[in-house]
Amino acid sequence: MPRKEANPLAALERVNEAFYKAFEALDIAAMDRVWAPTDYAACVHPGQELVVGWPAVRESFEAVFRGTGQIRFSLAEQRLLTRGDLAWISLVENVHHGDDVRVAVQATNLFERSREGWRMILHHASPISDDAGEPDTDFLQ
Amino acid sequence: MPRKEANPLAALERVNEAFYKAFEALDIAAMDRVWAPTDYAACVHPGQELVVGWPAVRESFEAVFRGTGQIRFSLAEQRLLTRGDLAWISLVENVHHGDDVRVAVQATNLFERSREGWRMILHHASPISDDAGEPDTDFLQ
Repeated sequence: MPRKEANPLAALERVNEAFYKAFEALDIAAMDRVWAPTDYAACVHPGQELVVGWPAVRESFEAVFRGTGQIRFSLAEQRLLTRGDLAWISLVENVHHGDDVRVAVQATNLFERSREGWRMILHHASPISDDAGEPDTDFLQ
Repeated sequence: MPRKEANPLAALERVNEAFYKAFEALDIAAMDRVWAPTDYAACVHPGQELVVGWPAVRESFEAVFRGTGQIRFSLAEQRLLTRGDLAWISLVENVHHGDDVRVAVQATNLFERSREGWRMILHHASPISDDAGEPDTDFLQ
């Protein structure tokens, strides 16, 4: 008999971690195990438009992986909320590329619980500007 | 007796529209009627980190409104999904500022159904780069 999770959110946290491990490993097969392969799976890569449907989302990650040498994530400010069979995690991805470069990315990850467990259905990632403080209204100028 | 909605999603679409009308009117009281005033209400303004909790989200909109003269949104590529008492809308905001400037912003809007009806609980907005095509991996360089 499978052991009952002491923390019912542990499975959800594991899938979120698996997403970043698959990204670090540039491993599309591992990504396959994280995402729900549905027509409503969707992804916003930093600076990009929404990509819709698992085949297109998968291709977009393959393209990112092809253009990436080494990448490491340190995750911060993680906030997790659930409602029934949906859950969303907000977090900051501190993205290390090679030894030197670090950029901060704000991400919203949305998950759906299916018979297979929690699966990602939306990843929205956007770079955080260096100038902190007041909300940046430059984009409106 | 209140008329039953022909389209059960119409109420959700109206709240989403009300968000952009409140933004165009720079009307924080109208924004009060769109959002769930909860500690988990959260917002990512373009280029910014997540702001958490309705008081802070409200202040962030007041700051944006103070810095804004005229703003108009044309919405495109709207996709709406619901699961129980949660719903999310992906869309492109074509943001017109004054007569000349137009920027495209990809948005994820998350809503929760309460006794008061659908209310926004997350708005994640991120600018879309001009260079379309392959996913932009420059952010990783």
